[in-house]
Amino acid sequence: MPMTVAAFGAVSASDPLVPMTIERRDPGPRDVRIKIRYAGICHSDIHTVREEWRPITFPQVVGHEIVGEVEAVGSEVTRHRVGDRVGVGCLVNSCRECEPCRAGLEQYCTGGGVGTYASVDRDGTITQGGYSTHIVVDEHFVLRLPEAIPYERAAPLLCAGITPYSPLRHWKIGPGSKVAVVGMGGLGHMGVKFAAALGAEVTVLSHTLSKREDGLAFGAQEYAATSDPETFTRFRGHFDFMLSTISTGFDLDAYLSLLGLGGTLVSIGMPPEPLSVRAGSLSRWKSFASSGIGGIPETQEMLDFCAEHGIAPEVELIAAEQINEAYERVVASDVRYRFVIDVATL
Amino acid sequence: MPMTVAAFGAVSASDPLVPMTIERRDPGPRDVRIKIRYAGICHSDIHTVREEWRPITFPQVVGHEIVGEVEAVGSEVTRHRVGDRVGVGCLVNSCRECEPCRAGLEQYCTGGGVGTYASVDRDGTITQGGYSTHIVVDEHFVLRLPEAIPYERAAPLLCAGITPYSPLRHWKIGPGSKVAVVGMGGLGHMGVKFAAALGAEVTVLSHTLSKREDGLAFGAQEYAATSDPETFTRFRGHFDFMLSTISTGFDLDAYLSLLGLGGTLVSIGMPPEPLSVRAGSLSRWKSFASSGIGGIPETQEMLDFCAEHGIAPEVELIAAEQINEAYERVVASDVRYRFVIDVATL
Repeated sequence: MPMTVAAFGAVSASDPLVPMTIERRDPGPRDVRIKIRYAGICHSDIHTVREEWRPITFPQVVGHEIVGEVEAVGSEVTRHRVGDRVGVGCLVNSCRECEPCRAGLEQYCTGGGVGTYASVDRDGTITQGGYSTHIVVDEHFVLRLPEAIPYERAAPLLCAGITPYSPLRHWKIGPGSKVAVVGMGGLGHMGVKFAAALGAEVTVLSHTLSKREDGLAFGAQEYAATSDPETFTRFRGHFDFMLSTISTGFDLDAYLSLLGLGGTLVSIGMPPEPLSVRAGSLSRWKSFASSGIGGIPETQEMLDFCAEHGIAPEVELIAAEQINEAYERVVASDVRYRFVIDVATL
Repeated sequence: MPMTVAAFGAVSASDPLVPMTIERRDPGPRDVRIKIRYAGICHSDIHTVREEWRPITFPQVVGHEIVGEVEAVGSEVTRHRVGDRVGVGCLVNSCRECEPCRAGLEQYCTGGGVGTYASVDRDGTITQGGYSTHIVVDEHFVLRLPEAIPYERAAPLLCAGITPYSPLRHWKIGPGSKVAVVGMGGLGHMGVKFAAALGAEVTVLSHTLSKREDGLAFGAQEYAATSDPETFTRFRGHFDFMLSTISTGFDLDAYLSLLGLGGTLVSIGMPPEPLSVRAGSLSRWKSFASSGIGGIPETQEMLDFCAEHGIAPEVELIAAEQINEAYERVVASDVRYRFVIDVATL
């Protein structure tokens, strides 16, 4: 029998989020039911409920940075046991048969990946996210959360962690790499921590120097303001790899000028508007690329990496009743560095 | 004592090219004097003499696809001997000290690379190119031309050959790679031959099917028209690597949609106008990159590869007096696939 659970969600694109109840399916043979402890707030949650990306079906509960405890498991579940600390990220299902799925790259599933919320699941229902007390997920999409990562700081890793981690690994960043992280918000601050832990020499390029102390504390060697034209002279041709978290239009040619021979600039900020780029800005074997979240095996690797290196996001813990106010602050980039909802307050 | 030699060059940006004489320096200790046999016509030659890229100093002799015979060598020359078959490409000098130079990537010299024409040489003179009977070049920038490559077809390799070859090697194209060559002119037809010889599965994407028979003869498995929208459906997500020789603006987002997971589109056509690109078009770890000519070691490797695989450009041999007419035909893309000047007619 489905379980009715407390949640906090949207009833329309324009109203504030409100308390509500939703139904969670009975765990199937391969399902895990998780009692959610914390859920992070991602800017995607806001774009989604406000229908800034596409129309959705209401009511809708969002949240794809989820951590909690296994409360029940289906009869065929082998990877998780009741009581385990676990996490769920942006994906709750995929075809499991296409080439990317078989390679553990479920984020690039060509047979129909299913997002944690506002997606049509393979059974036809609309997925509902993590601002709720429970969630039921196929065990394959449930990650093990190492003990070393504190519960209340772990949730943002499932999206704001894996999103910068995956390209750093794909482009083999390590000792000797000169890395720039452009923008130091939720994704950027984790990009700095990961790149530093991987042994790279990290520079933060941020609009102003207001978060400089934080950037250096997170592991950056340098911190420069992109509002200062001198930054573009000083670092000309300097970087092997640039991770851009900028989510609106930007002067791509100017940023590409900071790459050295063979360097790559990866956008994980995904500005929706088209960018202008001159082929000549890519001379010297430079590349412009992008990357989105990560597959299940790599997400697990990232969590284990965090435990090993003592890495966790910086968070502001809030109660459910503060979600609407937090949304306004996310839109204003006024958060250091991720809001996390204490689901016990739902 | 400098040598006065016959040449064919430009006296202004708007007049036709005319016969003229230029001076070549006495070979220094490390110089090689080459009796030029053939010189290819590159679209860059035309852009340069017409000042379509930047102002130049007249009179100017262009040509950076040069083959001939060593006629004299300086006292310290060790790499070449009188009588050797040799070639000279786009570079005649570089700093030899910067990191790219030391890595054999002279094309990316940061200390002052010198183009074969219309560049200020390290001694302050303006370089004069290959539409002339002789040229004097530092031995380091002189390539060995294998016997197996016929003289009259070899010249275009020095620019139209190395330009597609270098990115195919940099991005490790080989058996199993699904490669698209976009545009089948001077660069493109060599891109097809090289990619096929490297073992890739090659598709030509050309505006029309007019050169289809040629493309298949050069080693392509497929040949599709980009004027047919069905091409963009049929090859959606298909290619690992795309080599674009398009030299004007194009719909980059549409071409990127033809790349599969982790694929790269490299522009070697270098359109001068900015292109529009959505970061979302690069999702699935796709990259947009560019590449320019190649270093001296790689150019030698390319020549040896041609000899080994029996590869040579398709050329139309012309006399000096046909150069101006040939320029008009290059601008109209009416050449299969490269004009080569028989320098004996100067």
